[in-house]
Formats: sequence, structure tokens, C-alpha cells
Amino acid sequence: MASSTSARVTALDTYDIRFPTSRELDGSDAMNPDPDYSAAYLVLRTDAADGAEGHGFVFTIGRGNEVQVAAIEALRGHVVGRPVDELCADPGALSRALVGDSQLRWLGPEKGVMHMAIGAVVNAVWDLAARRARKPLWQLLADADPEWLVGQIDFRYLTDALTPDDALALLRRGRTGAEERRARLLERGYPAYTTSPGWLGYDDDRLTRLARRAVADGFTQIKLKVGADLDDDIRRCRAARAAVGPDVRLAVDANQRWDVDEAIRWTRALAEFDPYWIEEPTSPDDILGHAAIRRAVAPVKVATGEHAQNRIVVKQLLQAGAIDVLQLDAARVGGVNENLAILLLAARFDVPVCPHAGGVGLCELVRHLAMFDYLAVSGTTEDRAVEYVDHLHEHFLDPVVIRDGHYTAPTAPGFSAALRPESVARYTFPGGTFWAADLAERKRKGQTQ
Amino acid sequence: MASSTSARVTALDTYDIRFPTSRELDGSDAMNPDPDYSAAYLVLRTDAADGAEGHGFVFTIGRGNEVQVAAIEALRGHVVGRPVDELCADPGALSRALVGDSQLRWLGPEKGVMHMAIGAVVNAVWDLAARRARKPLWQLLADADPEWLVGQIDFRYLTDALTPDDALALLRRGRTGAEERRARLLERGYPAYTTSPGWLGYDDDRLTRLARRAVADGFTQIKLKVGADLDDDIRRCRAARAAVGPDVRLAVDANQRWDVDEAIRWTRALAEFDPYWIEEPTSPDDILGHAAIRRAVAPVKVATGEHAQNRIVVKQLLQAGAIDVLQLDAARVGGVNENLAILLLAARFDVPVCPHAGGVGLCELVRHLAMFDYLAVSGTTEDRAVEYVDHLHEHFLDPVVIRDGHYTAPTAPGFSAALRPESVARYTFPGGTFWAADLAERKRKGQTQ
Repeated sequence: MASSTSARVTALDTYDIRFPTSRELDGSDAMNPDPDYSAAYLVLRTDAADGAEGHGFVFTIGRGNEVQVAAIEALRGHVVGRPVDELCADPGALSRALVGDSQLRWLGPEKGVMHMAIGAVVNAVWDLAARRARKPLWQLLADADPEWLVGQIDFRYLTDALTPDDALALLRRGRTGAEERRARLLERGYPAYTTSPGWLGYDDDRLTRLARRAVADGFTQIKLKVGADLDDDIRRCRAARAAVGPDVRLAVDANQRWDVDEAIRWTRALAEFDPYWIEEPTSPDDILGHAAIRRAVAPVKVATGEHAQNRIVVKQLLQAGAIDVLQLDAARVGGVNENLAILLLAARFDVPVCPHAGGVGLCELVRHLAMFDYLAVSGTTEDRAVEYVDHLHEHFLDPVVIRDGHYTAPTAPGFSAALRPESVARYTFPGGTFWAADLAERKRKGQTQ
Repeated sequence: MASSTSARVTALDTYDIRFPTSRELDGSDAMNPDPDYSAAYLVLRTDAADGAEGHGFVFTIGRGNEVQVAAIEALRGHVVGRPVDELCADPGALSRALVGDSQLRWLGPEKGVMHMAIGAVVNAVWDLAARRARKPLWQLLADADPEWLVGQIDFRYLTDALTPDDALALLRRGRTGAEERRARLLERGYPAYTTSPGWLGYDDDRLTRLARRAVADGFTQIKLKVGADLDDDIRRCRAARAAVGPDVRLAVDANQRWDVDEAIRWTRALAEFDPYWIEEPTSPDDILGHAAIRRAVAPVKVATGEHAQNRIVVKQLLQAGAIDVLQLDAARVGGVNENLAILLLAARFDVPVCPHAGGVGLCELVRHLAMFDYLAVSGTTEDRAVEYVDHLHEHFLDPVVIRDGHYTAPTAPGFSAALRPESVARYTFPGGTFWAADLAERKRKGQTQ
């Protein structure tokens, strides 16, 4: 063991965690009929006297999680052996080193498997930094000097839309009223909306029952998956609207199912149910397509961002006027540092951020970013809400708590990324106790695969 | 062994191949100072009586090649056991199944490590199909019915710019004069330009000597890497222009080094040397940024595409008027099928295609696509040339042959992707004979990594 100041990272341990969610059709949508919600999970071990660790993960939906784990392992040499104090004092330096690794960069650049792996490692360092500071991450960020935060951001490819001076001005502006907002956050929490009623695999009775329960639970917005069959969507939107009444926001989500013209036609066909936004109407790469759709379907809003691969795509979605709502994701881009850039870009263009969540642990992570945004960047929760989905939280050591349709502010130090050890032991693929028993059962029944 | 019609794919074997190119600074540029040119290489084995195989690869520049290999292995279940005839009759069906694998799709979608892995497997199937048809791939494609070719393309997310009817019309138009062009291709080959003189790590004497040799060898265009230091670039461009004279095209390539405003300033500062195009001035994801640069630096052309992640980005580069020259890459996107879409998009917008090549085997592959484009799509080589770099060809069984500044048309059946077995044995990492000896030598000298 080492003293606190000389401690180093001693290991980067990875775990292929898979939950058998496809068996209940939780998470089913028009593009993802049978996901097995998974996490390529990592733990940074240190020799610090207090046993400090950093946790991070990439959310995936099953097959290929082993590729994501391999990508995280490819970054091991960048962190193992590094002094903990140095990493925690400047996660941005690590972020730049990882994104700038010229050989690994070829595998993106800044997109897909390799970039998400970078995000998981960077997020694990932030988890470690927040634990050592004995603060939840939202508070660490909100307490930080604006100058230091600006130094955490990689402005490469952004300066035609956001310069360091712009960012500093936004963060300085964000200080006004921060204390009042903090008190309000601790009292009320941050608004949530729920997708739990709306999975495509659920029948109308279940949809209606869950939609009513969502309203009773205090949610003022729910979301439905659409895009597989228009007649079904019309029936389901009618049932949902009837269940929640005229005053609850009803968002719909096509999960990238359509081409541009089809997205316009389909969204217009659902307009009678007053959808609040259409989410991911087409490819997440199609900036100009989203702009065309937005022009055609107003006043229905266009929302996207959970698959926006990096800050450069987000910049263009904003420059092109392609979206009304930005749905950043905590585990898709290069980690907290890139999400700081994304929050500031959104503020610069005055577009509200309603983060994507659900999956495995995305709610746990992204609430920190939304709360930081409220305290220190946008300064408001108006027309903002974090997605909420009510499954798999029991596997986390610091799970979300929802009260009256709001995320309560977490108080435990860190970024809330740590899984329970017993969940790791059970759902590690393929050797964990659940999967080993499942395999034995399949073998007994003579099933392949 | 199986008869020709009942043959199946029996294995997908992968190899992590790395060449120690960083030791000579071959391939050095402003973003990639020390690449070790590598290939995540695969061979589809079959039980066909004729021993038919299919070869494919992803080019990488070193670290992370093992992640790319893992991604290819994740696709094994999609091809092993499949009938060879079925795969070869419709590679598009496999392409759609791979791109559409809903769980793997989450890791992109359609970008980065997972998408390049799909491209390598799809290309290996095309190699197998062309070998069985006893034709080089360019000829297999040029001989195919337009209707069948259209059926090979995934039009998802393209129909606002290119419909199946548009594609069919382009391919039917392409039949006019195809026989004359074929004769001319076999006689003259396809124009090449060379990047060999211009690596950033080369000194001015070497640059001048290689530039003069390029002109003597019949090349009418050369390319220089720029972007690290403006004074150096001015000196190098002056030397290159002096070496080649006023009539040879001098392209410059910044390899994504700049932000938008910087790209404009830097390109203007090099304008006195009459650069033909500025290549990759900024992030390959920045469609709107390229459009802004193009507006500002005309008449210098803007070229990009080697890192365009998929057809959706290419579509937007064309829709936005962001480029003068499209530089598709044979191993970046989802394989031949997606490149058919990209060639047709370029034709639809009347933008010339000058494919990216170099690396490991990219010249070997991409000549087939350029020759098909000449015969059956654009119908011209005007303002078109395929990049040529003169290293690592000796490792391929069907290497490129350059004559008087032109790629000669390959005649061996297949897609020219197969490495020599002795090169595989020597450069497999870390167990091949070269790397094992290298490791032993480093250990002897007490060097770590």
C-alpha cells in the first residue's frame, strides 16, 4: 500500500457483464427487437491506502460486448502505473492522450467501439477523482473553477462554434444563482420522464396500465417506441394519450428506423396525438436529414443525440438547426470531458438537453451531468428532463432514487458507476453463475447457441 | 471435401499482421507520426473441392489491431456453415444481415471498428465470389446486370438523395461505350497519382529526388503531407513545385489536422504553389466544416473520404457541396456493397472519385472499384486518379503493377486481398518470426515495450 500522495493505478480490470433482458422484451424497439442489456465494465485498482477505485463502463445490448471489452483493454497501458493524484487533478490530460493516440485514432477517429472505450476509462478516472474528493460528481463539477473546467475540454474541431473564451463566459454566467439552484436541487431533485410504459414488445393493456401509473407517480412526460408498423403506432399512441390525458407530454421514439421522407410522413400521421417530440427519426449520422425532418414536422420537436458519436456531430446538429432537443448520453462519447463540451455547445445554441438514459447504469451516470448543467451551465430545468427506465438499478451500489417524477440528487462520493459485486459474479459472461447455469440447462435440453 | 454446389464455409480464420514501418517513417503525416502499418486479416475457408477461399482485411496503423481482429471474430457466426453458392450469389444479403445485426449495431451504428470488421468479411465474400467466377472483381462487377447490382445496395438512409430507380438509371447509362472503355483500360490502365515523395518525415533532398523520379515515372500528380508547421510546409511545397514544374498537379494533405478557420488560413498561405486539392483539412465528421472551407479556399479543391465512416456521411458531403473530390476507401466502410452505393452517389452528384490507397493492400483492393467505376458508372477517368504508394506490395499474392503512371488492370480472379503465406508467418503479431526475434532482441537489450 502507498500513501495517499504516492498512490498509483495498479490494474485495469475488465468484466463482460450481460443481463438476459431479451427474455422479457424489456428494451424492445423498432430497431432492437431483443436486446440483452450489457456492460463492458472496468475497475481501476490503486495502491492507495484508502483502497480508492474508479469504475466505468460502456453500455451495449449483447453480442459484441466482448469486442468492447477488448477495446477497453487496449487502453490499459495509458493508465496502469500512472500516479492517482496526477490523473485526478487533470482527467483532461488523460482524455487528450487517449483520443490523441495516433495509432488507436485510426480505428475511429473519435467514434464507435474505440471512442466508447476511451469514454469508459475517462469516466472511471472521474469516478476515482470524485470519490477522493468525497463528493458526488455533479458537485465536484459544480464546485470547480470555470477556468479549470475550460481546461478540461478539447476544443479541437469546435472553435468555429465554441471557443475557450465562449466556454468561460458561459461558465461564469452559470455562477449567478448557483447556490439557490443547489438548494432547490437538493429539495426537489431534477425532472425525469419515463420510457417504461412504451416498449414496442408490450401489449396495449400493459401500455395503458403503465402509462396511468407513470402519471400517478408524478411524471409529466412519457415516451413510446414507434416505427415498426404505422397502424400499430396509431393504436398505441391513441391508447397512451387516452391513458395520460391531454396535459402529459407524450414523446415518440423511432430508434433510427426511417429514411427522411418516411420520417416526415410517419410523424405527420401521428400528429393528431400531439406528440411532444419525435426521437431518432433517422440515422444518427444524418445531420442534414434531421434538419429537413425538423423543418417538415414542426411544431412536433425533433430530438436526437444518444448515438451522436462525438462533439463534432453535436456541433453540426446545432449549427444546422437540426434539433429542438439534445439527448446526450453518458457512455457513448469520450467521457465526462467531451460531455462538458457538449453541454456548453447546447448552451451556446440555447437548445435544451434531455439526456438519454436507461440501459445498464445510464440513469446512474447521466443524472450527474444534468444536475451539473442545471447548477453551472444552463441554469434551468425548463423543458428539460432526464429519461428514466425502471430496470437493472438493483445491480448498482448507488442506484437512482426517483421521487415524484424527479431524480433525487445523489450524495455518495463518485460517479455512481460501481456494480454490486454479487451482480458481477452472477452476470459475467459466460462464466458467471447465471450464464453457467443457463448454458448447462441449454445443453441438457440439447439446444445449441 | 464437398462438391462445388454443396460447399460451405468451414472456418473464419483471423490474423493480427503488423509491419514495423514506424522505423523508417514511411507513412508519417501530421496526425500519424509513427504508424506501424497493420492488417486485421481474415480468411474464409471452405470445403469446396477446388479449395476456394475468400480473403479480406481491415487496414490499421498498429496499436488496436487486436481489437479489430476481435471485431472480425464477432462476426464468425454469421458466415461459418453458410453455403458458398448462396453467399456468392448474393453478398448483399450477408451485408444486410451483418449491418442489421441489432445487437452488434449498437456498437456503431455503421461506423468504426465494428463497421470496418463487417467490411472485411463482406469483401472476403466478394473475393471468394470473384475467384469462383474466375474473374478479377472489377470484371465481375462490370459484367453484372444493373438490376442485380442495384439489389446489392442497401438504400436505407439514402433515398432522399439516391433511389433504386436513380441507381438503375445510372448503371444503364453506364453500359454505353463500356466495351470501348474495357479495351482502353486493358491497354492503358487506370491513372494513378503518387504520395511516395511527400511523407512528412522525409527531408527536402529526399522529397525533391522522389518528386523528380515520380515525374520521370509518368505520374502527372503527386501529393505532399502538410499541417505540422506552416514554415516547413511553405519550404516543402516550394521544393516540390520546383522539382515537378508547373504542369504536374501538386496535392496537399493535412490528415485532419486543423479547425475550420485554421484550415482556411493555412490553405490560403500555400496557394502560391498552386495546390490542386487540400485533402482532409479537418475532422472527417465535419460536413459543414468542409463546406465552409471549400467556399473559402476555391479554386483550390477540397478532397476527403478516406475516413468517411459510411454512405450516410458521403451523402451529406455531396448534398452540402462540401467536396470537389471524393476519396473513397476500400476497407473503411461496410465493403464492396456500400462502396457501390458510394460510387453511385458520387455519380449522381457528378463529383469525381479519386480513391484513397496506400497502407497495407489498399492499392490492391481499390483499383478494382475505380476500374468498375470507369467501365460501368462514371464512364470517364477525367480528373480521376487512384492514390499510389510504393510500399508493402511485396506481401501480396496479386500485387499492383504500375506502368507509366497507371495502374494496370489485374487479371487474376478475385479481389487481390490475399497475403503471401510467408509474410503472414513472419509478421503475425506477436508470435511471427519477425516479432518474436524483435522481442528477444529487446529483452536482450533490456528495453521494455
